[in-house]
Order: sequence, then C-alpha cells, then structure tokens
Amino acid sequence: MQVPGHKFSDVGGFRVGAGKSSFSQHRPFFNVTEPAQVLQHASEFPRIGRETVALSDTAGRVLATDILSDVDLPDFARSTMDGYALQAASTFGASEGNPAYLTVKGIVLMGEIPEFSIGPGEAAKIPTGGMLPAGSDSVMMIEHADVLDETTIEVYRSVAPGQHVLEIGEDFEKGAVILSPGQRFRPQETGLAAAFGRERVQVYKRPVIGIISTGDEVVPVDAIPKSGEIRDINTHTLSELASAAGAIPISFGIIQDDYETLFNTCSQALEQSDMVLISGGSSVGTRDFTIEVLSALPDSEILVHGISISPGKPTILAKIQDKAFWGLPGHVVSAMIVFSMIVRPFVEHISGLRQKRRFRIPARLIRNLSSAQGRVDYIRVRLIENQGTLWAEPVLGKSGLINTMIHADGLIEIGMNTEGLNKGEAVSVIPL
Amino acid sequence: MQVPGHKFSDVGGFRVGAGKSSFSQHRPFFNVTEPAQVLQHASEFPRIGRETVALSDTAGRVLATDILSDVDLPDFARSTMDGYALQAASTFGASEGNPAYLTVKGIVLMGEIPEFSIGPGEAAKIPTGGMLPAGSDSVMMIEHADVLDETTIEVYRSVAPGQHVLEIGEDFEKGAVILSPGQRFRPQETGLAAAFGRERVQVYKRPVIGIISTGDEVVPVDAIPKSGEIRDINTHTLSELASAAGAIPISFGIIQDDYETLFNTCSQALEQSDMVLISGGSSVGTRDFTIEVLSALPDSEILVHGISISPGKPTILAKIQDKAFWGLPGHVVSAMIVFSMIVRPFVEHISGLRQKRRFRIPARLIRNLSSAQGRVDYIRVRLIENQGTLWAEPVLGKSGLINTMIHADGLIEIGMNTEGLNKGEAVSVIPL
Repeated sequence: MQVPGHKFSDVGGFRVGAGKSSFSQHRPFFNVTEPAQVLQHASEFPRIGRETVALSDTAGRVLATDILSDVDLPDFARSTMDGYALQAASTFGASEGNPAYLTVKGIVLMGEIPEFSIGPGEAAKIPTGGMLPAGSDSVMMIEHADVLDETTIEVYRSVAPGQHVLEIGEDFEKGAVILSPGQRFRPQETGLAAAFGRERVQVYKRPVIGIISTGDEVVPVDAIPKSGEIRDINTHTLSELASAAGAIPISFGIIQDDYETLFNTCSQALEQSDMVLISGGSSVGTRDFTIEVLSALPDSEILVHGISISPGKPTILAKIQDKAFWGLPGHVVSAMIVFSMIVRPFVEHISGLRQKRRFRIPARLIRNLSSAQGRVDYIRVRLIENQGTLWAEPVLGKSGLINTMIHADGLIEIGMNTEGLNKGEAVSVIPL
Repeated sequence: MQVPGHKFSDVGGFRVGAGKSSFSQHRPFFNVTEPAQVLQHASEFPRIGRETVALSDTAGRVLATDILSDVDLPDFARSTMDGYALQAASTFGASEGNPAYLTVKGIVLMGEIPEFSIGPGEAAKIPTGGMLPAGSDSVMMIEHADVLDETTIEVYRSVAPGQHVLEIGEDFEKGAVILSPGQRFRPQETGLAAAFGRERVQVYKRPVIGIISTGDEVVPVDAIPKSGEIRDINTHTLSELASAAGAIPISFGIIQDDYETLFNTCSQALEQSDMVLISGGSSVGTRDFTIEVLSALPDSEILVHGISISPGKPTILAKIQDKAFWGLPGHVVSAMIVFSMIVRPFVEHISGLRQKRRFRIPARLIRNLSSAQGRVDYIRVRLIENQGTLWAEPVLGKSGLINTMIHADGLIEIGMNTEGLNKGEAVSVIPL
C-alpha cells in the first residue's frame, strides 16, 4: 500500500542510523497493551438498541427484558409417573409380607379435571402428566402395584407424601422472573418463553459490523490472482466470524492504496455500522497509514496501538464516535485469532450479552511447547481423545499457514509470564 | 388422548390379574433397546440431496464435494516478517563481535514483483507478505538489523535458509484436495473456499424436519391455558433444536385426540419432510396410540420401541418410506435430551456430516451421584470454574422440572453398568 508522503524507506519500525539501543520515533507497537487491559475497554462502548422479534426468530438472540411467568407451572399437582394417585398414608407400613389393598375409584385422563376425590384406602389410575384428584398427595409407580380386579390393587411398599408429584408452581411460580436481560436464547429458553405465552420477545439488535479489506495485492474471489496477488480471504472469514458472534456483517469491499478512498470508505462504514473491522496493512508502512486514517476521522481516539499477543500484535483499536473501530492484521490467521480472543468480547458487550456459556475444554498437552515471555501466545491445537483422556496436540507448521486453522479444533493460551508448557500439563482449549 | 377401542383400563403396562411375575401382552418397552444399538440404525437412512449455495451462505453447511486448490498458496515465496530478504549464506558466522555488512539493493512493495535480484552480500527491505526477490532465500527480522545508511545494514546473527519465508505452495499446493465432503463450514473453511475462488459451493441440503405436537391438554402459545392445560412448549423447543442441528423445521401443529387426524397429519408430514418428530403421548395409552398410527402408515417398520435411557425411555423410532419417524416423550425435558443424544446423530448422518467437532468437556463431579444399572442416565449439570478446575454440579430438582434445563450447561452420561459416580470423579460434559 503506497501513500503519498509515506515512502517505505522512511516509515516507522526501521532504526535509522545510530546504535542498537536507539528507536525511531515512529517505531510502532513500542507501547503495546496487554490483552486483559484491551478487554477492559469494552465497557466504554454503549450497548446497541432493542427490537421485538417473533419467538421463532429468537435463536442465538440476547434477551433485553425480564420475562415473567404468567401462570404457575404446573398449574395443577401433576403426576411425574404412570401409576396410582393416592394418599401416602394409605401405604405406610406396606411390604411384601404385608401388602396394602386399595380401592380404585377411577381413572384420570390427560388434560381433564378428575371429578372424584381420593380418601384413605382409595386410589385412581393416573398417567404421567395427569392431574392429581382432590385428596391425593402422591403417586405409586405402576410397577409397584398389582391389579387384583377392576377396582382393587395390591401395593407392596410405601410412598412418601409428594412422591412422583410436581406441586403447583414447583417448576415456575406465577409472577416469578424466569429469564433475565443478557441471557442468550438456546432451544430451552425459547421453549420456556412459549410456555408463558410470549409470542414475541424484546431482544437486543444484532450489531452491524462493517468489514473493509485493504491491500493492493488483494483481489476479489472471482478474479484469477496474478503472481503476488491473493484472493480476498479476510472479508469472507471475518464476515462469518461476525455472524457466528451474533452480528450482521456488511462488506465495504477491497480498498486499494488510496488515502482518500480509504478515508471515505471508513467514514461510510462508520455511518452504517455499529463496529468496523479494517483488515490488511500488515506491513509497517500500511499500519501507519491505517492509523493515520483512523486518527483523521472526526471524534476519534486511538485506545490501543499494538497488543502483546502472538499472533495479532499489530492490532489497532480506536473509539470513533462511540464505536469500536479495529485495525486487524492482514494475515487471515492473525485476524481470526484477534477476532476470537479480543474483538468478540466487544461484540458480545454491545450486544447486551451478560451470561456467557462458552467454556474452555480442559485437556492435556501432548508435547512440550515453548513460548516467549512478555506476550500471550495462542497456539492452534487439535483435540484427540485417547482412552478417556483428551489431548491437545499443537498443529505443526509455520505460524503463517492458513491450513493450520483448518486442522485446528481450538487454541490454547500461554500467559505473559510463562516460558512454556510441559508435555502432560493441563491446558484449557478455546474452541474455534 | 382417547382412541376408539383403547380405553385407559385395557392398555398395556398394567398388569391385569394374576401374580407379580406375569406381564400383559401389551406391556410397553419390555424389549427396550440400548442407546448404542439405536444409534447404529442411523446408517440405514439415506443421505439427502445436494444443492449449490453462495459462499456467503455456507455457515454451518456440510460440504458435499471435494474442493481443490486452483493455485499454489502462496504462489510466490513470501516473507512472514518485516525485514530484509537476503541469502542466508551472507549471514553465516555473523555475531555481535563480528557483524556482517550487507548492501541494501532495493525495497520490495506489497503486491509487486521485485525487479531486481539479490546476490551474496546483498539485501532488500521486505514487508510481511512481500515477495522474495530472485536470488534471496530467507528473511532477517527487522529487529536484528541496524541501518547504517541508505544502502548499508549491519546484522549480528545468522539466519537459516528458508527462515521467515513461506515457500511456493507450502500452505496449499495447486491441485491438492483442501476440503472434503462431510466437513462442516466454519469461518476458516469459508475463507479457504474464498482463497481458491469458489464463489459457490455444493453442499448437502438442510434436511426438513416435520414436527407434530400431540395431546388434548396442549394449547397454542397464544392461548390462556385452563386448569390442566399447558402451552405448546415442544414445537418451539424441538424446532430450535432442529435448526441448531442444521435442519429446517416445519410445524404441523397440535393434534388433538383423533386417530384419523393424527394419521392424516403424519402422512402429510412424511410427504413434506425428510424426518418427522411427533412428541407427546407420554402416558401409556397414548404411546400405544402413536405406535398404532406409525405402524399403519405404508411401508413402515418399527425399529425401536423404548430405549434404555433416563429420561427418554418411551421413545419410538420407525423407518417409514426410508425416513426416520420418531415418537418422542411428551415431557419437554425428556424430548430435549432424546433429541440431543439420539435424534441429532441421525440428523447429522442424513445431512452428510462426517467430521464432528463437538467435544465433551472434561470436568470433575462436585458431589456423589447414584444411578440405576441397566440404563444410561443423563444428568443435567452446571459448570463451575474454581481455581483452574472445572466442576460439574448436578442441577437439583425433580427430573420433570423444566427449570433444570434452563440452569444446565450440559449433561453427563452415566453408563449402563455404573451404579453411580463419586465426588471428584472425572466426567465428560455434553454441552447443551
């Protein structure tokens, strides 16, 4: 990427003249930020708006209000077994040698209110889910009763009061908060909203994420790359990552080496999006170029210029008009890892997500791994199950290889102050 | 649910007359099938068809063909660092006390083919991703070179041939198979398809899953349930589970107690779907009713009638016109667990999925758990991280409580021949 006034020979990062201890004024990423500090900036960005959607459109969405139960669930004492509704006291002392004999007074049918009541020594046949007749307080499982004739059963054991019964409101009491803002809908949360008659629910909007690819060497997917050129992998990969994080990606195309075009595209993306990702510019000169554009946008503050992670060090975060604007590395592997580890928590924050259920997978490291101190390393690993133990196997190959991401099931994080990890050591794998 | 000729008093499961060792001919689920055997039936069902979709619609889809690389990636020897391209031999023996001096012959720009070559004692400034000039075989990191003047650098260490360089085709060789049928698209697989110019790819169709709720006591979500009634949780929960498994759910509504209506709805669902789920009928009588309808459909074979799992025992699997037709328990918790553990692998099979990346999460059990032998128990658990250890805490409450599914992060499986698990024991959590 060429910028007027930015010849490759005079941009930062190259020590000009003098001895080994001198640094150019432009040396980039000298004051890199630790990843934990970067993540703290997330709370500086406002949550996005809300909208109301149909129950069938809630998958993966984040609830924006409380949902209260409008009925007791169950709203009647309900059998949890096929069996006989009875008074527990009628069975006390019953045993193989001394069975109790009960009179079957009727049959409870699903969805119907029994028209009889149960007294001492009486029982009623009841299906799973059936309503307990008045007077009964428990259910004897069908397997524990022998039918003697149409109106008599013999039972050999006692039941406790309340056994095999869900009491009124035992699952959810009427008026209780059953779901809270910040919860993401899984199938069971959607089912629960259905149980309480919510045909539509208020959720946070899906944030719109603008995606810009840069680089003279980047060509569209339908082009045949000439020597030195590469097709636009980043727009497609970042769009899918954004979708998977619950956002709506919008591509602003591939921007060639032209300051004005990049500036205008960034302005446009900022206007139409809740967050912007610009990827590319992995060379020193282009990084300076990106930061120049970001700084020039109105109401802009550069929060982070370099993160102490590998891969992904040359990452920029600016707060522009209250929106996060990211300069991501040009290499797709680095861009993916930065998105997953750093950008995604920002997407989740502005999306209103509070309850996170993404768990790291504990595993054991299959071989020694060395790591540089002073930065957090993300190592791509494959997961292998062997005789009940889950092993994390680092995916071999140079860090720039895209094929490593295809072979990887996840990442392991090696902390700032760790020199390396030993074979057999416990690690936590972040699924990819 | 009432069926003509099927009075509650004469259906299976109730031992009529005689002693404790006699079983009614209709006793359901006497020959229950072990879950592992049920899963083996999956391969009896044909995979569904294929379709071609745009790259932007590949998220979660299953690839149906090989994808070959149409270019070498990279298609030129590419620097993986900002630095100097040179001949490694020019640096051999260089040290702090005996630096090597190299002549800077030019600058490589991104996306451009260098018009000069590098000989012994020469170097060219090169950005990450830049093309190595002819004659050079390695890159010296910028941090390891001092600029003396416009045309001279001083280096203090040696590099190895090939260092910080991706060779032509080192990531993906032209003509190689880069993705295979049965792989599910993650962001990186989509990115890779972009890298090789695939604007459209052939994937397996998303199977259509017909969903039928049954039960006189079940009312639509927009209804106010009367005493003894419950809103239709199952259609919504199962639809979301089907979507999450990559399928397209179609609801066929709530079917009341009418044999002919159920039969006709099942016929219609079968015609319009690749798989059908009918839920409800958790009572003994209704189960017989469902199996009667399934048996009566043309070209039907009942493969499974009862599974030795808890919850979920009263599950039916029929093969009807080469499609899987499931009778799921009426209780939503049981239906969810059966879907996740049993039905989902069938959905994945017909969807063409071969490479599965769903991992169980190793954890330690926070308290003792008892379990019945002779069946597989699925226990809902919460995951709690404490000082680097992940603990699985069983969610308390009666098994029929829906709220347990909301509080659960996953399930643990207790095998057929296990009486229980001890506090501290290693368990594998299946995420929900």
